[in-house]
Amino acid sequence: MGDSLRNYVCGMVERIFGHIPGYPEGSCFVSRLELSRAGVHRPRVAGISGRGREGADSVVLAGGYEDTQDFGNDILYTGHGGREVETGKQIGHQALTRGNLALASNRLLGLPVRVIRGARHPSSYSPSVGYRYHGLYAVDDYWQERGRSGFRIWRFRLVKLPIMLTAEPYDTKTQKNNAATTHVGTTLLRLGRETEQMRQLKALYRYRCQMCGKRLETSAGPYAEAVYIRPLGVPHNGSDTSDNLLCLCANHHVLFELGKVAIADDFTLLGQDGRLLVDFRHHINKQHLRYHREHYWIDPEAEG
Amino acid sequence: MGDSLRNYVCGMVERIFGHIPGYPEGSCFVSRLELSRAGVHRPRVAGISGRGREGADSVVLAGGYEDTQDFGNDILYTGHGGREVETGKQIGHQALTRGNLALASNRLLGLPVRVIRGARHPSSYSPSVGYRYHGLYAVDDYWQERGRSGFRIWRFRLVKLPIMLTAEPYDTKTQKNNAATTHVGTTLLRLGRETEQMRQLKALYRYRCQMCGKRLETSAGPYAEAVYIRPLGVPHNGSDTSDNLLCLCANHHVLFELGKVAIADDFTLLGQDGRLLVDFRHHINKQHLRYHREHYWIDPEAEG
Repeated sequence: MGDSLRNYVCGMVERIFGHIPGYPEGSCFVSRLELSRAGVHRPRVAGISGRGREGADSVVLAGGYEDTQDFGNDILYTGHGGREVETGKQIGHQALTRGNLALASNRLLGLPVRVIRGARHPSSYSPSVGYRYHGLYAVDDYWQERGRSGFRIWRFRLVKLPIMLTAEPYDTKTQKNNAATTHVGTTLLRLGRETEQMRQLKALYRYRCQMCGKRLETSAGPYAEAVYIRPLGVPHNGSDTSDNLLCLCANHHVLFELGKVAIADDFTLLGQDGRLLVDFRHHINKQHLRYHREHYWIDPEAEG
Repeated sequence: MGDSLRNYVCGMVERIFGHIPGYPEGSCFVSRLELSRAGVHRPRVAGISGRGREGADSVVLAGGYEDTQDFGNDILYTGHGGREVETGKQIGHQALTRGNLALASNRLLGLPVRVIRGARHPSSYSPSVGYRYHGLYAVDDYWQERGRSGFRIWRFRLVKLPIMLTAEPYDTKTQKNNAATTHVGTTLLRLGRETEQMRQLKALYRYRCQMCGKRLETSAGPYAEAVYIRPLGVPHNGSDTSDNLLCLCANHHVLFELGKVAIADDFTLLGQDGRLLVDFRHHINKQHLRYHREHYWIDPEAEG
């Protein structure tokens, strides 16, 4: 019991987005109770572990929803809600709330979700008995459609993450920047995966663009992009630290990356009017600003 | 002679962005003249084949620029200009014009560039004699820096494209939608590769967003994103045709894809004020608009 309580503090779940130490991919469990105690999927009944805009840390595929389709590395997962308790039949619409909103938030936040298959899930990937942990997936897309029952259901496309990108878990509560963030490279960013640092920075600015103040509102919450000032990797070798990050809208991301807009040491914008919004808790390294100016910005007055 | 003139019409070059039929990767050439006649790299002296905002179709690495670094699948290519004719020494700055602007445009337009290495290029990937064609690369990034000479040079990161994505050439003059466009899938789009259809649509709208009219100006030209209304691939199965495409700014791309904004059959925007700008030459399939509305849009008034 002590163990199953370990991660509950004042009713708060210490939600781990990633592998659970001690339970590698392929781990088997005899029951939902065992799965819950291991922390691989905490809820004992619900298929989605997660709450609203925090994101979902795990899902169980256990045959409950007739519309889920399983292609192994690519799963079309059906959201929850609208089912009758006694029969399990779909008797109403699903809404983008609770677990469904949590899964949608994974896409906005770039968080991975653990996938567990149960024996009752009708798929060749299911274990013959009990439950098996099948690793980390990204929520690649989500949409609504009419299910076989005629009611509106939410669908989530879950795409398996390469094992190399998912070697270590990270923990949103302790906010440790461990392996999951230090392994970040171009590929990872392109796939829309985010580091914990990026998520924190965007939250600090409440998803407002530091250049124009705009906040892109979506149905699953606000959207912003975290952008490295000095790019990571050879030959730029920018650091994977928050003093090298900005929170921008998608348009200013493009303009900054393509050198149309840059930032002076006093945070005046170059290439457009205005000044960078900087929260007092966000230290920006001016060396990085200078690197970006010297390498990416084209001064319209200097260029012949 | 007839053959080498074939592709010149009224002084215009029929520029092929992709493999040249009959010259697969690995093809060898004894001289620049042979390379030029084959159409693999037309200019007989210049290292970059391409003009301004049309993009560059090929580059030759032949040892001319001291700062080029070659890691095989990842090349840091030095732009041209600023060298003394007699000595080849860097005696002035390089500007983002001519071939350099062409290479930068490849990034904006999502065009591939053929890479040819010459024996004089100091790299373990170079042929021992003559020239060898090494396949298609994407222009992944570009920036300026001080070269070894102390003058400003432009650098282009060229990244090898997987062979599966580059099986067939496409031709911007005949505007045929051949294999290169029909193979397009999610992976291809994520990598920022564009189909000819996408480029044409963006050109038709002069890179203005069909939702807000905004045009993102960058140092290498205007920037816009081509967005599928009904997504390609299972389970949506949208078509890879221009009646399923929109030209949007990066912010409206996010809002449309995440279901915040949709489009009514009469082109009124849903979720924000305004109306979609539609050129009379751009036929939009209303089935696709409906698919997007039904699957992605969340009507704030309907959702409980």
